[in-house]
Amino acid sequence: MRNSSLVSINDFTKDEILKIVRLAADFEANPNRDLLKHKVIGSLFFEPSTRTRLSFETAISRLGGRVVGFSNSSSSSTTKGETLKDTIRMVSNYTDLIVLRHPMEGSARYAAEQSQVPIINAGDGSNQHPTQTLLDLYSIKKTQGTLENLNVFLVGDLKYGRTVHSLVQAMSHFNPVFNFIAPEELRIPEEYRLWLRSKGIKFYEHDEFTDIISRADIVYMTRVQRERFVDPIEFAKVKDVYILKNAMLDNTKDNLRILHPLPRVNEIDCDVDANPKAYYFQQAENGVYARMAIICSILGLA
Amino acid sequence: MRNSSLVSINDFTKDEILKIVRLAADFEANPNRDLLKHKVIGSLFFEPSTRTRLSFETAISRLGGRVVGFSNSSSSSTTKGETLKDTIRMVSNYTDLIVLRHPMEGSARYAAEQSQVPIINAGDGSNQHPTQTLLDLYSIKKTQGTLENLNVFLVGDLKYGRTVHSLVQAMSHFNPVFNFIAPEELRIPEEYRLWLRSKGIKFYEHDEFTDIISRADIVYMTRVQRERFVDPIEFAKVKDVYILKNAMLDNTKDNLRILHPLPRVNEIDCDVDANPKAYYFQQAENGVYARMAIICSILGLA
Amino acid sequence: MRNSSLVSINDFTKDEILKIVRLAADFEANPNRDLLKHKVIGSLFFEPSTRTRLSFETAISRLGGRVVGFSNSSSSSTTKGETLKDTIRMVSNYTDLIVLRHPMEGSARYAAEQSQVPIINAGDGSNQHPTQTLLDLYSIKKTQGTLENLNVFLVGDLKYGRTVHSLVQAMSHFNPVFNFIAPEELRIPEEYRLWLRSKGIKFYEHDEFTDIISRADIVYMTRVQRERFVDPIEFAKVKDVYILKNAMLDNTKDNLRILHPLPRVNEIDCDVDANPKAYYFQQAENGVYARMAIICSILGLA
Repeated sequence: MRNSSLVSINDFTKDEILKIVRLAADFEANPNRDLLKHKVIGSLFFEPSTRTRLSFETAISRLGGRVVGFSNSSSSSTTKGETLKDTIRMVSNYTDLIVLRHPMEGSARYAAEQSQVPIINAGDGSNQHPTQTLLDLYSIKKTQGTLENLNVFLVGDLKYGRTVHSLVQAMSHFNPVFNFIAPEELRIPEEYRLWLRSKGIKFYEHDEFTDIISRADIVYMTRVQRERFVDPIEFAKVKDVYILKNAMLDNTKDNLRILHPLPRVNEIDCDVDANPKAYYFQQAENGVYARMAIICSILGLA
Repeated sequence: MRNSSLVSINDFTKDEILKIVRLAADFEANPNRDLLKHKVIGSLFFEPSTRTRLSFETAISRLGGRVVGFSNSSSSSTTKGETLKDTIRMVSNYTDLIVLRHPMEGSARYAAEQSQVPIINAGDGSNQHPTQTLLDLYSIKKTQGTLENLNVFLVGDLKYGRTVHSLVQAMSHFNPVFNFIAPEELRIPEEYRLWLRSKGIKFYEHDEFTDIISRADIVYMTRVQRERFVDPIEFAKVKDVYILKNAMLDNTKDNLRILHPLPRVNEIDCDVDANPKAYYFQQAENGVYARMAIICSILGLA
Repeated sequence: MRNSSLVSINDFTKDEILKIVRLAADFEANPNRDLLKHKVIGSLFFEPSTRTRLSFETAISRLGGRVVGFSNSSSSSTTKGETLKDTIRMVSNYTDLIVLRHPMEGSARYAAEQSQVPIINAGDGSNQHPTQTLLDLYSIKKTQGTLENLNVFLVGDLKYGRTVHSLVQAMSHFNPVFNFIAPEELRIPEEYRLWLRSKGIKFYEHDEFTDIISRADIVYMTRVQRERFVDPIEFAKVKDVYILKNAMLDNTKDNLRILHPLPRVNEIDCDVDANPKAYYFQQAENGVYARMAIICSILGLA
C-alpha cells in the first residue's frame, strides 16, 4: 500500500487490513516516536468534523509531524471559486500526504487522481470513511482477541450509514454472522444482501433487538435521524426501538462490547457510559493509533 | 496541584499562587525548553478569544508541545448535536491536558468531572478566568516587587467583570487595600463586600477617581459596556468618567502601573500607551509565562 | 534587511532580491532544516487565503518553527472591537515575527510601525503582496536561467492586480521588455506607464495576444473579473479574449513558461495544465522556498 492513496476500505486486502491492525497495536504500546519528523501533512476539512480531524492531528503530532490546512471550507480558497482539482494540486505540492474530508461522494477518488502525494479519505459524503472502519476493526480485535467468527449486530440506520457499509465489507473477510436491526425504511440495501449471499456469509434481519442481544459479541450502534423519514409518524413509531438502554445489557455475553462511530445524540442512554461493556470512547481513542498506523504505512515508514 | 484541574482561582492556595508566580519568572528568564516534548494539548475554544488562545498556544509551542483543537464552535462537532460531555470524553482520550473556553457558566467544572485529563478553565462565561488572574498577579509582583500591602484600584464594570472578582479574591491573601470605582449600576456585588468585611480587608467605594489616583499602586481598568445599562441616559452620564487619560497620571506614584485584561476599546486613551506607567501590553506578554508555569505545574513537570 | 519588515517589494534593493532568489534555491535543495527551532511565528489572516497561508505555514513547519494565529477574522478579537494596533502590539509580544494578511490598503505599513517584531505583508488589499512577487521572480529565474533581458507578457486585469504592479516594479531592475495585454477598462495605470518611461524601460500595450505570444519568454496570466466592469456588455465583449487556450502555445518559444498567481477560475483552460509550458502549480510550490528564504533572511538566520 506504500505511496498509494486510501480512498475506500476495498483498496485494502485482508492482509493489509491485518497489517494495520497489528501496527495500531504497536503504536498504542509506543505512541511517541519521531517517525514523522520533517513531514508536513495537509489536513483539508471542507466540512467540520472534530473527532476525525483531532484524531488525525493528534496522531500526526504524537509522531513528530506537522499539520497545515483548514477545518472548514469558509477558511479556504473555495470561497474564491477555486476548483477541488486546483486546491489538491497546490496542497500536494506543499505536503507529503493529504487527509481529505469533503461532502461530495467520489471527491476522494477524484482528488487521488489529481494529487502528487497520497490522499487519505477522511469521509466523502455518504460514500466511504475507511479510516473509521480500520479503527472499528482494531477495536473489535482488541476487545475480542480475534476478528474471526464473531456475531456482529448492526443497529439503526443501515441504509445511509457509510460506516455500516464499510464495516460489513471489511468484516466479511473474517467469517462473521451479521444481525441487522433497522426500521423498514432504513434496512441494509439490497445490493449488500445480494453481495453477502454471493459470498456465503450468514445474516439475519430484525426490527428490534431486546430479545436477541444476548447472542451478540459486538453491537455497533448508529443514529436513526428524523430527516431520513418522509412520514414523521413513522419516525415517531420507531425512534425508541433503536435506543440502547443499560438494562438491555443485563444478560449479555461477558465479551460483548458496544461500539458507536460518534458523535452520539440520544441513541445510547447516558447510563450505559459507565457499563464496562460500553466501549465507544475507547474506540475513539483507538482511532489515534489506527491513523498512526495508516499514515506511516502509506508513507513507507512502518 | 499536580494532575488536578484549574477551574477557579479558589482552587489554589496562597502557596500555590506564589509557586506559579515564581515559576512564571523562571520561564520568562528561560522560555525555550522542551518540557512539553511529545505532549499534545487540546485547545477547545467554543467562543473566539484571540488573546487567551494565542497566549496558551504560544506557551505550549515554546515548550515544544503540540496543540490540537478548534478556535470557535462552528468548527466543532457541537454543530452535530454532540454534548459537551461527549466532546470532553473524546478529546481527553486523545490529549494530555485540555484548555477550555466555553460561554456557559459552570461548564469548566462540569468538564473537569468528565475528563480523563486535567482541564484548565480559559474562561467560562462570566464566572471564572483563573489564568488571567494568575498573570495579573505575576504582573503585579513583577512591577511592585511584592504582592503584599498594595493599594489596588479597580475601575469600571465591577458587577459583571469576572477578572475583577477573581483578582479581588486572589489579592485578598496579601493584605491589600481596595478602591472600587464604578457607576452605581455596576458596583461590586454585595456578596464581595460582605466577604471582604468578614476577612477584615479594607475597601472603599467611589464613583470617580481623578482626585484619588495619586494613592494607587495598581490601577486595574475594565470596560463599561453600554449593554449593561437599562437606561441609555444613565450610560451617557457616566461613560466618560471611567476613561483613563494621560493627564490623570501626572501626580501619581512612581511605582504605579496601569493594568487591563484587554481587549481595550476606548476606556484607556491611546496616548496613555506611551506612558511608562502603562503596563497592559507587557501584562499580556506575561500571560505566556504564567501559562507555561500553570501547564507545567499541573502536568508535574515543574 | 535583517530585523526589518517586508511591506512592499520596493523595500528590497536589487541585491536583496537576488539574495532571496539565491536563498530560495538553497532551501529548495535542502528544505528540512531546524533553523526555526524554538521560534513562534504569528500567522494573522484577517481574510481567508488558503494558498498564501498554507505556503507560509508549510515553510515555517519544514524549518522546525511553530505557528500561532487565525485563518479568518471571525476567530479573532476584532469581533470584540479591538483595533488592529492593539492586536499587533499583543501578538508582537508573543511571537518572533508576524505574517499579516489584511483587507485594508496600508494596513501592513501601519502594523509594521506598531509591532515589536518584523511584519511580513502577506497582502494588504489591492496594495502590495511582496512575497508573491519574490516567488514569481524565483520562478522566472528557475525557468529562464536569468532574470535579465526577458520579454514578459502580463495579461488580464492590469489595473487592479497588485501582483502585476509589484512584478512590474521588481522586474524593472533587470532590463525587461513588457507587453501589457488588457481590455481598455483594465489597462495598466498611467502612473506605471510614466514611471517605466522615466526609467527607459520598453513596453507595449495590446488588446489581444494570440498573434504575438510567440515572442514571449514569460506569460503572466491574471483574472478579468466581471465586477470590474460598469457595463456588462463590455465584459461580455472582452471576457474570452483573455483566456489562454492550449492551441495558442503551439508556436511559442521552448523556454516560454505560463505563470499565474492562483487561484485560477477559468482564465486558463484546463487542457493547458498538462502542457510542459504550464508552470503555475510549480510556481505555487516555489512559494514555500521563497518564503523560507524571506523569513530566515529577516530573522538573520540565512
